[in-house]
Amino acid sequence: MRAVDIITAKRDGQELTTAEIDWLISSLTRGEIPDYQMAAWLMAVYFRGMSSRETADLTRSMVASGRHLDLSAIGAFVADKHSTGGVGDKTTLVLAPLVAAAGVPMAKMSGRGLGYSGGTLDKLESIKGFRCELSIDEFVEGVKRIGLVVASQTPDMAPADGKLYALRDVTGTVESLPLIASSIMSKKIAAGANGVVLDVKVGRGAFMKTMDDARALAVAMRNIGESVGLKVRAVLSGMDQPLGFAVGNALEVREAVETLKGEGPQDLLEVVYIIGANLLEMAGKVRSLEEGAEMLRARLESGAGLAKFIEFIENQGGDPAFVDNIALLPTAPVQTDLLSVERGYLAALDAETIGKASVEIGAGRRKKGEQIDHAVGFVLRAKLGDRVDIGQSLATIHAAREQSADESKAALMEAFRIVPDPFQPPPVVIDVVA
Amino acid sequence: MRAVDIITAKRDGQELTTAEIDWLISSLTRGEIPDYQMAAWLMAVYFRGMSSRETADLTRSMVASGRHLDLSAIGAFVADKHSTGGVGDKTTLVLAPLVAAAGVPMAKMSGRGLGYSGGTLDKLESIKGFRCELSIDEFVEGVKRIGLVVASQTPDMAPADGKLYALRDVTGTVESLPLIASSIMSKKIAAGANGVVLDVKVGRGAFMKTMDDARALAVAMRNIGESVGLKVRAVLSGMDQPLGFAVGNALEVREAVETLKGEGPQDLLEVVYIIGANLLEMAGKVRSLEEGAEMLRARLESGAGLAKFIEFIENQGGDPAFVDNIALLPTAPVQTDLLSVERGYLAALDAETIGKASVEIGAGRRKKGEQIDHAVGFVLRAKLGDRVDIGQSLATIHAAREQSADESKAALMEAFRIVPDPFQPPPVVIDVVA
Repeated sequence: MRAVDIITAKRDGQELTTAEIDWLISSLTRGEIPDYQMAAWLMAVYFRGMSSRETADLTRSMVASGRHLDLSAIGAFVADKHSTGGVGDKTTLVLAPLVAAAGVPMAKMSGRGLGYSGGTLDKLESIKGFRCELSIDEFVEGVKRIGLVVASQTPDMAPADGKLYALRDVTGTVESLPLIASSIMSKKIAAGANGVVLDVKVGRGAFMKTMDDARALAVAMRNIGESVGLKVRAVLSGMDQPLGFAVGNALEVREAVETLKGEGPQDLLEVVYIIGANLLEMAGKVRSLEEGAEMLRARLESGAGLAKFIEFIENQGGDPAFVDNIALLPTAPVQTDLLSVERGYLAALDAETIGKASVEIGAGRRKKGEQIDHAVGFVLRAKLGDRVDIGQSLATIHAAREQSADESKAALMEAFRIVPDPFQPPPVVIDVVA
Repeated sequence: MRAVDIITAKRDGQELTTAEIDWLISSLTRGEIPDYQMAAWLMAVYFRGMSSRETADLTRSMVASGRHLDLSAIGAFVADKHSTGGVGDKTTLVLAPLVAAAGVPMAKMSGRGLGYSGGTLDKLESIKGFRCELSIDEFVEGVKRIGLVVASQTPDMAPADGKLYALRDVTGTVESLPLIASSIMSKKIAAGANGVVLDVKVGRGAFMKTMDDARALAVAMRNIGESVGLKVRAVLSGMDQPLGFAVGNALEVREAVETLKGEGPQDLLEVVYIIGANLLEMAGKVRSLEEGAEMLRARLESGAGLAKFIEFIENQGGDPAFVDNIALLPTAPVQTDLLSVERGYLAALDAETIGKASVEIGAGRRKKGEQIDHAVGFVLRAKLGDRVDIGQSLATIHAAREQSADESKAALMEAFRIVPDPFQPPPVVIDVVA
């Protein structure tokens, strides 16, 4: 086979064979195809798309390019979840302990934040001593012993995806549905869980801006799962406004702890319950989503979720003292409020603007490898539909310096829109693709 | 500027600015943009195209990437011509001496053949001692002194085009109209002539298979010329069958000499006269195409064209003895005829099939740098519309070995189609875009 023929076939809208895709990806993995040919192929895929079969083949080839985790030693249904990325998305920090406390082990490999999407690892690293880089043995052992591990993706899993992603990032080929779906799913499949719930965010602060795109991505990923015998469901959830109130790493850990203590925001809990209930049902732990949500609520109320969270932090070397004394988390020296100059109802709380402001203040990365400040970020004081008054705080800004606080204030202002008439907030959980 | 933003803009169908295109090409020339970004950009251009303004900007940037020849020392209108490539296309060998003999200097940089398209340099190198690699000084001096030079493109002219072309060749992005047009025109502009006639071949044996594509390419190149003040006209000429009878390097030189001696094929002469008449008119040498064609015919009949041809060969180190004794050209040891097994009229003489057979027999290159055999090839014995009889020779095959002659015979058979009823051959000169 020749790469140029495969590029030309895709360019001309032909469906590639399983053998062609496998040859391409295994050649890439062995470093036998130059990046310029892969880049041309990626752009052709951007324009021509891929069939379900091609997308599944691409995913399988990327899984085969590296280590495929064997979690059979756990001896139970192992659950995983993945979010396509949003602003203020601390779902894993609450969901995973509750699901684990309900008896379904969770084994999650996660990533760092890039751009205005936060990353679970960054949030967890706000915690003193917490280790994300585990060996495979530590990973499997942790899931086996306490039923919950969240660790960083190891580079030997789906390395072809790593290479492709690095190339997509610099060649304008990130925004391609089959490439996004296969990238996510190759890592999920390689991580070895039995069932995954995907949280496909949709809206202003999400990668997918429209319901059509979000649903298409959900269906594509579900189909890939089906083709390899992995149970996949996808929750479509809203990301026009941030999830919960906190945006920023330590601030989100604090909100997660408050939530596990029974004082969490409604929208975050809704997302946690729908994803968790689906995982419990897929695991055969409950017979209905209602029963699943009930079980998770009970684990929250009993404190079993919080106890599992503490166990999880300790298992990965973290000091859980902050759970009882939140001041032990990194704290920003400057705290100042953005005050409303209008009276009315909050009709926009633009997640993208807030996410970008959080990157500017230092909570996120402009590019890979950049240092972040775990302490900084925002705590919203109102959500969509809430009534606000003149002089009322719309958000508290946590900053390293006065200047960056002022800059954030100006940037955040743009995110809020206040209208005179009551505004009906959109639902947070939109649909489930099963 | 960032390459990824330029790639993304083109991907999304936006028109790039002059500054963006210039930045891209000058960065490429300095080796500051990785090939994978150029490859992604090329594929985006393949899908989205370029406006006339973008195409002209790209061409200008490629010209600016290297040496721009200054032919003002010649002190006269300098003419150039370029063919988009065909089978049996020895036009330059006849045209250039006639135009020069008519008093309009011709300065042509040419290429080698690749695939089934022949290259003028390869044909000329059939001649003992002939040198294509001239210094710039030799090039200018030759045009000045005898009014005719055909030399190989020097690598310091439009080097960005060289880089882009090498990349296009392996990334499935050759077949893009603005990329083809800018590639040809950047070299023509850099070569410094005052006026160019482009011979855009169209048909089975040409790069452009349809009239629409050929016309679009002609218009695109004419527009580029306009934007830099270079006079450009394009002749659209048919390439469903080879031009003339000979296909193969020394065989085509022989046919060119015969033509200059007054015994040339009608279709070749038609193409020579229309291109030449346009060049003479553009140079202000004649007031009409009719007058131009008449002047060229007179130069042919008087022997002035042949004399200029001999002067040209000698000027570049070649031994012109073959002009009087054609046996001094390389001669193939095996000569055998393909005989017709049918009676009727020739209704197809597929130039692509014949071109590919000529590559197989050794007259052309499968890939760059391959050795070719100057002696081998075919001499057709009939052209479209001719009446043929059973047992009559359709073509004489000139081969290095019996085996390759037999293989060629089988391949060539596929090119011919004989029908019972008279067949009207298509015109060779289809149109002129001025």
